[in-house]
Amino acid sequence: MPRRGLVLSSFAAGNSGPWRIESISAVVGDGLPEATHLNIREEDTAIADDASWVLRGVTSNGRYVRRAEQQRLVERQEGLGRTRATRAALIPIRKTPAWWDLAQDERRAIFEERSSHIAIGMDYLPAIARRLFHCRDLGGPFDFLTWFEYAPEDSASFENLVARLRGTAEWAFVDREVDIRLSRA
Amino acid sequence: MPRRGLVLSSFAAGNSGPWRIESISAVVGDGLPEATHLNIREEDTAIADDASWVLRGVTSNGRYVRRAEQQRLVERQEGLGRTRATRAALIPIRKTPAWWDLAQDERRAIFEERSSHIAIGMDYLPAIARRLFHCRDLGGPFDFLTWFEYAPEDSASFENLVARLRGTAEWAFVDREVDIRLSRA
Repeated sequence: MPRRGLVLSSFAAGNSGPWRIESISAVVGDGLPEATHLNIREEDTAIADDASWVLRGVTSNGRYVRRAEQQRLVERQEGLGRTRATRAALIPIRKTPAWWDLAQDERRAIFEERSSHIAIGMDYLPAIARRLFHCRDLGGPFDFLTWFEYAPEDSASFENLVARLRGTAEWAFVDREVDIRLSRA
Repeated sequence: MPRRGLVLSSFAAGNSGPWRIESISAVVGDGLPEATHLNIREEDTAIADDASWVLRGVTSNGRYVRRAEQQRLVERQEGLGRTRATRAALIPIRKTPAWWDLAQDERRAIFEERSSHIAIGMDYLPAIARRLFHCRDLGGPFDFLTWFEYAPEDSASFENLVARLRGTAEWAFVDREVDIRLSRA
């Protein structure tokens, strides 16, 4: 019985599925086992027996985005599932205990005032569509899963986006990051 | 394998346990089934077969508290489990979709600038000890569980605390609240 605005999704890697896994790279810390395909399913659907790994996250509510920022995002962003968006990335990250010991105002200041996390993402809208899933409270191995979708011609823009984020002050608090690249026909 | 600072607790109501349930009152919306005792267990421990209901929550990180507020809280608060604190309350609440549609700055403004949620709680420290458990992301029927502990002589103060919170602008966004009172010898 999902609650409004709260979607629990499972990203299950295995031998078949609509998204083909092109690569799985450990950016910081441990990586994830190899697999060839990814299935994305919403709550209450079965996980295939042959799953290599499963990561779960919930869309939840934003933790840092202010109203004015949210309005600009809504105006510029496009949804997932666009036909031309045949490239995707799933990037699970975990942040350090030092991050989680910070108070709300300290985390917000690092996230946006120092790292421009929202502003950087905005620079690539609507080309790079994204959805954030929270999983820290669910007790899994990561704190967040971000799913990105884009057209092949925006691949260079996407590399630029992730490189800029990884260069921020916020990223100094990332102690595990895996970068999974995918494609579909 | 619990993560540092992240405790998943289960509040299981049944026929036995260290806390005797004195009352279960529906404040807003549906209540909860009757039961006589409450067990509180941390992650990975079994739930008794005779449980009447089980609510789960995770301590997680604060969503609104700023560093200066957190320091004042830490200076004034005492831990759970004080010998003289033989009275307790478990208050599960759920907030409306309208609350969750608000951006972070709007929720913070209602929470503290308009409703003084942190300041009200501070007025009753250290007498009324509290711990907040998040459960919205876990998918249960409530968004938060708050556990309070206090000595019998602070019962009137506790009634005052909950009455003040229920009178705030924030509480207009509460669409389910159950108030469970407990005691132990």
